[in-house]
Amino acid sequence: MASTSRFIPEPKTAAIVGCPFSGGQPKAGVDRGPIHIVEAGIVQQLEGLGWKVKFDGHHEFEDINSSLTSDPPIGLLKNPRLVSRVTEAVAKVVGGHAQNGELPVTIGGDHSLAMGTISGTLSKYPDACVIWVDAHADINTVESTDSGKTSLLTRAIRLAYRNIHGMPVSFLMGLGSKVPEFSWVKPALKTDSIVYIGLRDVDAGEKKILRENNIKAFSMHEVDKYGIGKVVDMALDHVNPNRDRPIHLSFDVDALDPSVAPSTGTPVRGGLTFREGHYICEAVYETQCLVALDLMEVNPSLADQPSVEQTVAVGCSLLRAALGKLWSTL
Amino acid sequence: MASTSRFIPEPKTAAIVGCPFSGGQPKAGVDRGPIHIVEAGIVQQLEGLGWKVKFDGHHEFEDINSSLTSDPPIGLLKNPRLVSRVTEAVAKVVGGHAQNGELPVTIGGDHSLAMGTISGTLSKYPDACVIWVDAHADINTVESTDSGKTSLLTRAIRLAYRNIHGMPVSFLMGLGSKVPEFSWVKPALKTDSIVYIGLRDVDAGEKKILRENNIKAFSMHEVDKYGIGKVVDMALDHVNPNRDRPIHLSFDVDALDPSVAPSTGTPVRGGLTFREGHYICEAVYETQCLVALDLMEVNPSLADQPSVEQTVAVGCSLLRAALGKLWSTL
Amino acid sequence: MASTSRFIPEPKTAAIVGCPFSGGQPKAGVDRGPIHIVEAGIVQQLEGLGWKVKFDGHHEFEDINSSLTSDPPIGLLKNPRLVSRVTEAVAKVVGGHAQNGELPVTIGGDHSLAMGTISGTLSKYPDACVIWVDAHADINTVESTDSGKTSLLTRAIRLAYRNIHGMPVSFLMGLGSKVPEFSWVKPALKTDSIVYIGLRDVDAGEKKILRENNIKAFSMHEVDKYGIGKVVDMALDHVNPNRDRPIHLSFDVDALDPSVAPSTGTPVRGGLTFREGHYICEAVYETQCLVALDLMEVNPSLADQPSVEQTVAVGCSLLRAALGKLWSTL
Ligand SMILES: [Mn+2]
Ligand SMILES: [Mn+2]
Ligand SMILES: [Mn+2]
Ligand SMILES: [Mn+2]
Ligand SMILES: [Mn+2]
Ligand SMILES: [Mn+2]
Repeated sequence: MASTSRFIPEPKTAAIVGCPFSGGQPKAGVDRGPIHIVEAGIVQQLEGLGWKVKFDGHHEFEDINSSLTSDPPIGLLKNPRLVSRVTEAVAKVVGGHAQNGELPVTIGGDHSLAMGTISGTLSKYPDACVIWVDAHADINTVESTDSGKTSLLTRAIRLAYRNIHGMPVSFLMGLGSKVPEFSWVKPALKTDSIVYIGLRDVDAGEKKILRENNIKAFSMHEVDKYGIGKVVDMALDHVNPNRDRPIHLSFDVDALDPSVAPSTGTPVRGGLTFREGHYICEAVYETQCLVALDLMEVNPSLADQPSVEQTVAVGCSLLRAALGKLWSTL
Repeated sequence: MASTSRFIPEPKTAAIVGCPFSGGQPKAGVDRGPIHIVEAGIVQQLEGLGWKVKFDGHHEFEDINSSLTSDPPIGLLKNPRLVSRVTEAVAKVVGGHAQNGELPVTIGGDHSLAMGTISGTLSKYPDACVIWVDAHADINTVESTDSGKTSLLTRAIRLAYRNIHGMPVSFLMGLGSKVPEFSWVKPALKTDSIVYIGLRDVDAGEKKILRENNIKAFSMHEVDKYGIGKVVDMALDHVNPNRDRPIHLSFDVDALDPSVAPSTGTPVRGGLTFREGHYICEAVYETQCLVALDLMEVNPSLADQPSVEQTVAVGCSLLRAALGKLWSTL
Repeated sequence: MASTSRFIPEPKTAAIVGCPFSGGQPKAGVDRGPIHIVEAGIVQQLEGLGWKVKFDGHHEFEDINSSLTSDPPIGLLKNPRLVSRVTEAVAKVVGGHAQNGELPVTIGGDHSLAMGTISGTLSKYPDACVIWVDAHADINTVESTDSGKTSLLTRAIRLAYRNIHGMPVSFLMGLGSKVPEFSWVKPALKTDSIVYIGLRDVDAGEKKILRENNIKAFSMHEVDKYGIGKVVDMALDHVNPNRDRPIHLSFDVDALDPSVAPSTGTPVRGGLTFREGHYICEAVYETQCLVALDLMEVNPSLADQPSVEQTVAVGCSLLRAALGKLWSTL
């Protein structure tokens, strides 16, 4: 409990940014994720770890919704104006908390929101690095296509996936064609300032982007090869060798195995165990460099009640682990 | 099969000490654990591994029960006289087997019994070390309190847990206020002669005790960081660097993940896998230093029939692993 | 996708050898395994990975069946003539594909078929090594007996197991008494050219054979001790130190934990996880040395429908992993 942060002044304050938003992907219900996480008591739980916690209700983005009379697709992008404006609003909220010396904890909602959260973090900490924990690389561009030979069904799924929640990283890096609607997004994330953990469903187009840009990624193959302890060490060594850069941790709950977190929109077998997911959060906390935290893609509409409760409970537990419920402080 | 023990002479004899006792904690049924383990055939199973096995029925402690007309709490301690007398009796039984050159296998029952088993082991082998496998540190003292900010529910659970089965280690070390009723317990266990594996639910008071006394503990965080193989190596290096000290292995079945051993009183998520639990037992056996073995907290009243059978089967399997069902002898 | 093989020329061709055969063991239904795997779309899946795939229907062995008017046991061996003739036929088919520069993918059926597949591989590649992934060593001889003290039930199970699917490795090595009916099997597999991964149910007779012949085996104890990454490295270092020998990978689905692959004839607890099984396949593929692949003991008759579908899906997934669905090519 006595641990200090290098960047967040005492009294340490976490600002919950609840984003019930699902415009970056097609499945209904992911917008209910943050409501469930808050109802499960995350505010009190973080207070129990010694944090001052700010939470003044979820961001409903109603003004944005009502101001958009129509939002036709731009090429493959669905709801482009809505996603752009919502993520821009999130960038301002997250950036504001960061400017205040608070640690924003953004709870989604779909992973397109990370365009906003990471933009907000970088507005305060331009040298921040990103640890992106996910089954997916979310680095499609508007043009990236899968050159592999795949079944029609796979193509259909991948096209559906090529919604904006499959693209935030490329937007943050300025890869691919520019979409004028997203001109507010500064390409402020350098390709060597992000590292992935947990990848296991990356299509050929994304692999090409990762390879050509020398982006470091630890897939489940590497987690098995080296163990999660060494993988986290190597990931930190890549983006934060001296453990002195601010860290934005963006955790897509589908990084976990579906047996651990079943209630999410694009589950993929062979994921992180309960313990590995927590280990990552604990190890990031131990660096004392965490400045922003996302928990994304908890979708309480996709599973039976026990699975929903399990997923929400795991989500809360990951947030607690990232904010100090650590064994290493024994 | 050809393996030898450094301390137990041939023909190697294991003495089953069945302790259907639940006085150290509040949930009914844990006293049925040893009965189920024996009925599942542990005697024959150990014979199948080449052991001579002694078992003359469970210790029912009926005399002790009937001699106590009343047993009011002493401060926070529930059933203090009963727990003291039963554990003292167990100390004598276990110590007697040890004196005979037999390896006592104590099956609980609640973990307060370890006050007896470890006292018995130390009476024969004063330089024995202890490997304590548990989700909990069981090192509360009469005064240790949780200084953390926790919910009322958590406090209630922790108070309930502050029954004597949450305290045996502190009694064995002589930490905290002395309770005259327990004056028979010699503080014979040195703080550097125990090592924990599997911890993941340790309150702030216990953490303080562990830290101030430099007691070595490998929590689940370390198991994930290093892998179970290296953790067991480091644990042995700490208490038994030359692999020449006698080892008392005290295994609380709640060290295992609840998905592996559901039928126990205080389960905690994120525990040891089936394989990790067995690995620990196998690696301890391999040292040829094992002189006493506890299997505690199997509670056949807390779960549905398949979960009970699963937990009992795992318990038997751990005992077999600790007593020689080893792959390394391929 | 751009990866090349050291031994299989472009365009890389995989030849599916479907062997619905169960004569080497007593449980009905294992002969349906290959039919389910093919119906699940393995041909299209491998094509999706860039392979040319040959499949002209399952090998029904009807001529052999009808030519045998009677097939009494020879000592302990059940159906000896049938097993011999079928495996000899498989040896010719697999050997023929290998001669054509194709990679045979044999789908069983019971593991006695590996007498055929490995004989076929060795006919083309005399210096090939074998990676045998299994809960069992399958190295009983006609005479090997279990000297351990075991329950009657265990003995009964072990006798049942001492069908020919528990023996193919000893036949391939020429260990034990010669059975004239199997004279076609050349003892071409050297004891230092095979390595096991995943063992956890090996009887005393088999342990003796492994020890006396210095056969390298990584049991689950070693997988826990070192982690699967290091175990695969050590296994490859043993049989293929320069990564220049052809590899035959023989994967018995019971190497996986029963929670992962429930529908198999002789499941054993404490097995490989989904991820570890895939890791092995991926790492073998990465060597570019794979020349033949077996997937054995999927038995769709032994479990409920979801468990069958799960086991079939895992089987397909392992085959894809072994044939190039790799993360390391990110
Ligand atoms: Mn994502
Ligand atoms: Mn994802
Ligand atoms: Mn305990
Ligand atoms: Mn415990
Ligand atoms: Mn086999
Ligand atoms: Mn097998």
